[in-house]
Amino acid sequence: MIDQTKLPFSVEIYTCPTYRETAFAVKKMIIRGAPSIGAAAAYGLAQAVHEFWESDSFEDSIKVAYDELLSARPTAVDLKNGLDFIRSTDPFTPENVVAQASLFAKRTADQGLKIGQIGKELITNNMNILTHCHTGALALVDHGSALAPIIQAWQDGKRFHVFVDETRPRFQGRITAWELSQYGIDHTVICDSMSGFFMSRGEIDLVILGADRVTRNGDIANKIGTYNLAILAQYHNIPFYTAFPTSTFDPSTKSGKDIEIEKRNDSELKIVEGISNIQKKSDSISIFPDFVKFKNPAFDVTPNKLITGYITPYGILTNTQLVTFCQ
Amino acid sequence: MIDQTKLPFSVEIYTCPTYRETAFAVKKMIIRGAPSIGAAAAYGLAQAVHEFWESDSFEDSIKVAYDELLSARPTAVDLKNGLDFIRSTDPFTPENVVAQASLFAKRTADQGLKIGQIGKELITNNMNILTHCHTGALALVDHGSALAPIIQAWQDGKRFHVFVDETRPRFQGRITAWELSQYGIDHTVICDSMSGFFMSRGEIDLVILGADRVTRNGDIANKIGTYNLAILAQYHNIPFYTAFPTSTFDPSTKSGKDIEIEKRNDSELKIVEGISNIQKKSDSISIFPDFVKFKNPAFDVTPNKLITGYITPYGILTNTQLVTFCQ
Repeated sequence: MIDQTKLPFSVEIYTCPTYRETAFAVKKMIIRGAPSIGAAAAYGLAQAVHEFWESDSFEDSIKVAYDELLSARPTAVDLKNGLDFIRSTDPFTPENVVAQASLFAKRTADQGLKIGQIGKELITNNMNILTHCHTGALALVDHGSALAPIIQAWQDGKRFHVFVDETRPRFQGRITAWELSQYGIDHTVICDSMSGFFMSRGEIDLVILGADRVTRNGDIANKIGTYNLAILAQYHNIPFYTAFPTSTFDPSTKSGKDIEIEKRNDSELKIVEGISNIQKKSDSISIFPDFVKFKNPAFDVTPNKLITGYITPYGILTNTQLVTFCQ
Repeated sequence: MIDQTKLPFSVEIYTCPTYRETAFAVKKMIIRGAPSIGAAAAYGLAQAVHEFWESDSFEDSIKVAYDELLSARPTAVDLKNGLDFIRSTDPFTPENVVAQASLFAKRTADQGLKIGQIGKELITNNMNILTHCHTGALALVDHGSALAPIIQAWQDGKRFHVFVDETRPRFQGRITAWELSQYGIDHTVICDSMSGFFMSRGEIDLVILGADRVTRNGDIANKIGTYNLAILAQYHNIPFYTAFPTSTFDPSTKSGKDIEIEKRNDSELKIVEGISNIQKKSDSISIFPDFVKFKNPAFDVTPNKLITGYITPYGILTNTQLVTFCQ
């Protein structure tokens, strides 16, 4: 997999020879984006099947691997969906689980393409679109979720501008900027605190972002800052769309209140990585002194009433349509 | 003056032997906080009077110095108020302008003390207070604006918790954290994008922050991100207060629409300063690659309808009271 923690400064391949290393890559956000970690978990469990196939404690080992992969990140449901998809393989053989993982990954990628074809209709010339976090090809095996409509509209010849939230604390906005720049798409990075300023001046026409989990009632968990944007968009009467593949659906969870929000390490706020202006090479610096305490919820929950529509591989759904679809 | 760009990693004194260096210090945010830059500008103009007192072109030079100091930062009205206060010195002699600058600075500091005495009544035990940017002693010559009520309530024995927005792009939250830690006040730093998350969980009871300019109708310009917070606070029915001394009043400006918003350099988003984790000494790193473009409005405007009250040296005013007071 491409090591997303090294982007956009360098493109490096991170190799996971065992399921444990795959779980580690998910936990450390070497691979990130709900659908991509779903696919990684699927391949991870397939790896475990290969590792323990000849072991006397095969069943127990697979159970341990399942739990370890599942607990690597708690919020995105794609992880569980990927693992359960592998577990449902029948007959459950080393060859079949790999094919099953590939099927899961391909389905996700295909859905990204479809999301793009469907969602691009929302985009018109000269629009200003705001997006948050990173939802491109790397986040969805291929094609992307919220970035897919943007990329496909651009490839169709539409011309517009994208505001990219830098997305503290992990600055996923720089991955988004990198990916948009690959397609030559006009974009500007802003701080997460600047969205209201541009909205109030009529400089944002549309908000599109992804989701890490969509519950039965249409609430979404997504990268911290999404909820702020949803409220700001509603205040300014700006349409607010979330785009995601079916692996992100979680009809078994009733509403956003039931979603576990991952609390990540303080060091994500305290330490940032980049290129040293003295040494001229990769470095990380502490931007806060040691006495500072932090809170670091990685996601927030946006209630359905703040969401204009859901861009899915099956169409742009209203909340009522989504709820019906889930049943 | 204390070099605020070096805080909280080191406390260093920055010396300005001439008015030009004072203007530079304001521009580069070596001194920051609207009331403090007002006082710095007042002293800066007094310096210019000393520098050019024996010059044949005294009047012209003072005019140039006035304009140079005024243009160092466009948004805070304190700068103009400080300069005009010096210009009104009568008789206009080198001794008198220094006394006048000291009077301006002392008045600002005294008002901070008063703001604290008045504003601390809003704070009760076990409250969670959110603040943005830095509004402590360093921002107001002494005592602070929005931090003054917090500090005085704590000194009165009240116990509560302060959420500190990190305040991208310049991370003034670390100065706030440093200043709160001097008093032992319980606090936690969060990303600017996390406020809605904590508000939605009932974990924020009160928002207090400063202002850089308050117009005749009670709109305020303040650090970028303030407007987002005001909308989020209103959505969650959380009281939202701004605290400021009279030097921040600008009755000559009708409304927030008429305020010039300073656009600062892209490098503020791109480059961050801290302590290298390799070299273990001060360094700055580029956190975005060179191809990335940015927008960097330093302030936003919050309309009066989103403001619960104005904490001033003359009491906690409603919008109607403030408007009457301005007339």
